[in-house]
Amino acid sequence: MEKRRLYMDYSATTPVKKEVLDEMMPYLTDYFGNASSFHTFGREAKAALDKARGQVANLINAKPNEIYFTAGGTESDNWAIEGVAFSNKHKGNHIITSKIEHHGILHVCEYLEKYHGFEVTYLDVDAEGRVKLDELEKAIKDTTILITIMFANNEIGTIQPIKEIGEIAKKHNIIFHTDAVQAAGNINIDVKELNIDLMSMSSHKIYGPKGIGALYIKTGTKLHSFVHGGAQERRRRAGTENIPAIVGYGKAAEMAKENMDNHIERLTALRKRLIDGILENIPYTRVNGSMEHRLPGNVNFSFEFIEGEGILLMLDMLGIAASSGSACTSGSLDPSHVLMAIGLPHEIAHGSLRLSIGDFTTEEDIDYIIEQLPKVIERLRSMSPLYDKFIKENKDK
Amino acid sequence: MEKRRLYMDYSATTPVKKEVLDEMMPYLTDYFGNASSFHTFGREAKAALDKARGQVANLINAKPNEIYFTAGGTESDNWAIEGVAFSNKHKGNHIITSKIEHHGILHVCEYLEKYHGFEVTYLDVDAEGRVKLDELEKAIKDTTILITIMFANNEIGTIQPIKEIGEIAKKHNIIFHTDAVQAAGNINIDVKELNIDLMSMSSHKIYGPKGIGALYIKTGTKLHSFVHGGAQERRRRAGTENIPAIVGYGKAAEMAKENMDNHIERLTALRKRLIDGILENIPYTRVNGSMEHRLPGNVNFSFEFIEGEGILLMLDMLGIAASSGSACTSGSLDPSHVLMAIGLPHEIAHGSLRLSIGDFTTEEDIDYIIEQLPKVIERLRSMSPLYDKFIKENKDK
Repeated sequence: MEKRRLYMDYSATTPVKKEVLDEMMPYLTDYFGNASSFHTFGREAKAALDKARGQVANLINAKPNEIYFTAGGTESDNWAIEGVAFSNKHKGNHIITSKIEHHGILHVCEYLEKYHGFEVTYLDVDAEGRVKLDELEKAIKDTTILITIMFANNEIGTIQPIKEIGEIAKKHNIIFHTDAVQAAGNINIDVKELNIDLMSMSSHKIYGPKGIGALYIKTGTKLHSFVHGGAQERRRRAGTENIPAIVGYGKAAEMAKENMDNHIERLTALRKRLIDGILENIPYTRVNGSMEHRLPGNVNFSFEFIEGEGILLMLDMLGIAASSGSACTSGSLDPSHVLMAIGLPHEIAHGSLRLSIGDFTTEEDIDYIIEQLPKVIERLRSMSPLYDKFIKENKDK
Repeated sequence: MEKRRLYMDYSATTPVKKEVLDEMMPYLTDYFGNASSFHTFGREAKAALDKARGQVANLINAKPNEIYFTAGGTESDNWAIEGVAFSNKHKGNHIITSKIEHHGILHVCEYLEKYHGFEVTYLDVDAEGRVKLDELEKAIKDTTILITIMFANNEIGTIQPIKEIGEIAKKHNIIFHTDAVQAAGNINIDVKELNIDLMSMSSHKIYGPKGIGALYIKTGTKLHSFVHGGAQERRRRAGTENIPAIVGYGKAAEMAKENMDNHIERLTALRKRLIDGILENIPYTRVNGSMEHRLPGNVNFSFEFIEGEGILLMLDMLGIAASSGSACTSGSLDPSHVLMAIGLPHEIAHGSLRLSIGDFTTEEDIDYIIEQLPKVIERLRSMSPLYDKFIKENKDK
């Protein structure tokens, strides 16, 4: 019997859809020109680049010339923050962000604090992982040049009050960046309606290829370039254009836009089925994040008395690929900074499991997890001294 | 009759070899995991990453843990320069480079001068485009923290005296970076023998995919990270690993290594055939660059009395894809900074043509160019007032 391969880690990365790969293939073979070249090979590549830019712009209601391709979400984050920081240094050195951002944000902020004289405020979040608007207002100073708050969290799926944050930023004339790596293509986003100045996006979270992303830069937003060199991307992001990946990202964005309503409805139903099934079958379980403001495909549980790593290991043996937090932080033994920020005690933060659902997830997959996960948790708890102690204490009562 | 497609712009970008694409395909389909993930899908990706790192390391005689994957040559250049500059600011603020570097170097240097208080010396080159070692020595100050000189020039193909530069850098205890985007995989490079501390490389110049490159960082070299975020690349370059591209780059590097002697011999012979054929058939022609220290695949001519753009246009109509300079500077009407630096007058610099030869170029291709190019040049000269004036003046003599 072939080993089951059940992928429940769509927030880490998604497979490339067949339609996307089909669009890419000619650019990996015959149409390999450098889009900056003057000749036929170059013009073929340039035409593909222009088309893809329109497709990505259309996904978020931007103008095509507001889309700048990068190598991915993290580069977009780095560009937005360093770009604004260095080009607005004369106005001020203060940046506001939150404690639950992706490391692509947090580590840039720390770098700017440590080496370049910037000051960063890391906002607390509420128990659901949402930024408190009154605290954001209070944090603003005369020297604040940037507010960067993620659109939706990669671990617990919480969607921030982006429109309200955008309004506050606009009122104070502060540039507003949002890391929408998990959100753009998974939920509806209209950058104009939301007062977003800068937005980071990624292809490989929405069934496009890896190694490509974009930064939306609202016309008129002042920021330095991040990668300096050739004249690509209207002189704002140097480096030979990665045309096959850009074409794939364009197609993925187009498909995400066309499929949005169905995608949200389907994933939300599967999410509900999974959450209900697990809460019914596993005691001492907590759903992390918000039930109201949540990415359609995100499920995040904490199981008391056990550790996330053990769960992942046993699930993997059953062929189920899941995650305990962000893929980008694997190898670290620290508990998730996101779960700590929403107030989970250390030991419960350690026992978390993220199951992320995508377009290829079926009801059967969900039911298999509902069938298997309780056994896994029970087995791990049976080996847990913490659980043993808890049961004994409660029996005595 | 189908239009001829004769590609003579291998220095701008190369097609992906079939063997390379074949290696990539499984990672664009079934094995799509995030290499930082804990589960089976992640481990499959991680194994592929490790293999490719070894292949790239082997190409230049580095250790695998000295190879850091980036999104391409320009990012590698930016990382090397900004990384060294910012992390060694306490030691000094002086950088030495040359006037014929790629814009991926020059524009970073200008950025550091303009916004971050660094001082940059741009060395002159000789008529062949080689840095003068005595001038390099003289340029060194107590505050010099970095020497960055390209391995081989992208326009005229001149190979620098890298070993000697490496020795000078070592003697003065200065970090030595070289942009080897055109060189690594096209000629033999041994980073240990050459005293190179940092070296930029690219995949799409050696029949690998676009959007991937590497920075070689000699063990112990101090530099800040450029892209901050997740723990990828041993915490030095954040962002989800672009596994399909990395796998392709690894395979391309392996093939380049295996095929090196044959590649050099074949391309050098084709280059000679092309240069001889053109010099014999077109008067008032100059070969730019060095005949001795030259990339095997590079040919660069200046044709007096005419402009490069006209040549490109007419060649393109014949199905021949060529370039007048770097693809990254297209759209600019300025004459090439490289040709100006080797002392060409403005009007001759404007009439240059780069024909770059690669592994799919045949003798027949070369002969077709030797047949067509003289007609193109004659036609353009017949329309040139400069040429008309020259002929009249010389007739009178």
